Amino acid sequence: MENTSSKIFGIRAIIEAINSGATIQKIYLQKDLKGNLFSELSSLIKENNISTSFVPVEKLNHLSKNNNHQGVAATISPIDFYDLETLVNEVLESNTTPLFLLLDQITDVRNFGAIIRTAECTGVNGIVIQNQGSAPLNADAIKTSAGAAFKVPICRVNHLKDAMFLLQASDIKMVAATEKTNDTLYDVNFNQPTAIIMGSEHRGVNPSILKMVDAKAKLPLLGEIESLNVSVACGAFLYEAIRQRM
Amino acid sequence: MENTSSKIFGIRAIIEAINSGATIQKIYLQKDLKGNLFSELSSLIKENNISTSFVPVEKLNHLSKNNNHQGVAATISPIDFYDLETLVNEVLESNTTPLFLLLDQITDVRNFGAIIRTAECTGVNGIVIQNQGSAPLNADAIKTSAGAAFKVPICRVNHLKDAMFLLQASDIKMVAATEKTNDTLYDVNFNQPTAIIMGSEHRGVNPSILKMVDAKAKLPLLGEIESLNVSVACGAFLYEAIRQRM
Repeated sequence: MENTSSKIFGIRAIIEAINSGATIQKIYLQKDLKGNLFSELSSLIKENNISTSFVPVEKLNHLSKNNNHQGVAATISPIDFYDLETLVNEVLESNTTPLFLLLDQITDVRNFGAIIRTAECTGVNGIVIQNQGSAPLNADAIKTSAGAAFKVPICRVNHLKDAMFLLQASDIKMVAATEKTNDTLYDVNFNQPTAIIMGSEHRGVNPSILKMVDAKAKLPLLGEIESLNVSVACGAFLYEAIRQRM
Repeated sequence: MENTSSKIFGIRAIIEAINSGATIQKIYLQKDLKGNLFSELSSLIKENNISTSFVPVEKLNHLSKNNNHQGVAATISPIDFYDLETLVNEVLESNTTPLFLLLDQITDVRNFGAIIRTAECTGVNGIVIQNQGSAPLNADAIKTSAGAAFKVPICRVNHLKDAMFLLQASDIKMVAATEKTNDTLYDVNFNQPTAIIMGSEHRGVNPSILKMVDAKAKLPLLGEIESLNVSVACGAFLYEAIRQRM
């Protein structure tokens, strides 16, 4: 698969892309940019909570293939993201028991892709990721997902907690995958409307998110290694939900 | 982690390594090598069923860092492999219900590593791989395994079928993960001594191996994608075994 994320360069082009509703993955900026046009771009970045990164000019030259980038380049996502509220309403109106998957800052694109693939295979109604701190939905992620990224609805939110409030308001139970509990996933009732929360590779689910959940559950670990690969753990959780719902 | 696989060069050095019992991952050969010493090496390669690859001289120069390679280089595994028969006897004498994992030509090193990690976390007694056609247990695999490669016994055999005969002779049931069945993994009784067989990323479990198994089982796939990532699928199988054994 070719790199499916497009790149755009130049302040004006990026302002137009944002205003036209394109999904910006990340904006790369040279330090100390000034001027009216750049102020306009800065405001849009803040308004839309777009992920940014300050990079040396060499990186911008490389990204833009030495085109005139004016100190700014951006990557645009080829995936159409869903609006969470609309999606939740659609799922609630359908005849299924909702199953959502919330990813708390999964940073490895191959893990992200494998998780999307597993979500498609287990009939997950929607994946929710956070704008900041998540692996980009780039060509590698899409490739690892085996194309599932185009089939499972994916929602991006500013804060995972906002998504949790929204889902809990619809009586969807929050189950966090975490070692910080004595319960295993086999103690959880997945026959109720459920959202499973998987944490980042290195830190697990954020403590402030753990405070909000309805249940915490761990996978039994019988060896000396202290954790599983997150995409493997996610698969074990999703298949336990499937098993209970069969 | 640094590359933990050692490289050796030169026909004589490699002959000595083989004779001393070192575990050769792969031998890289220049085409059209001749001479008595090379004939001796060729015989050893056949006798020991060592994986080989014909490469351009530039690759050999690179592997040997421009040392005098005489047209041959080899990578040596840093992992001590176990003898399957000895391991099976040890497991049978212990007080556990045996759980083995047989990998039928998993070729992606990251999948291989993730599977080893999951095997360690689920208390697998041993992993069996085939000499030919398997991903090498190289630095990437070991890194992805989170060090589990040093903790789970791994056995290499010439043919997976030989391992299956040996395990079946000890009343260990063979369960293949395959779509070619109506049974799901939830229909399998994992409370008996079991070996789970996972197939390669692209072709699944070899049909000739499927003929030998005691049970075939699939993971339910509720979407349009036709298969899971093999390390995710392996995790779902191993955790179903754990669940039943709890």
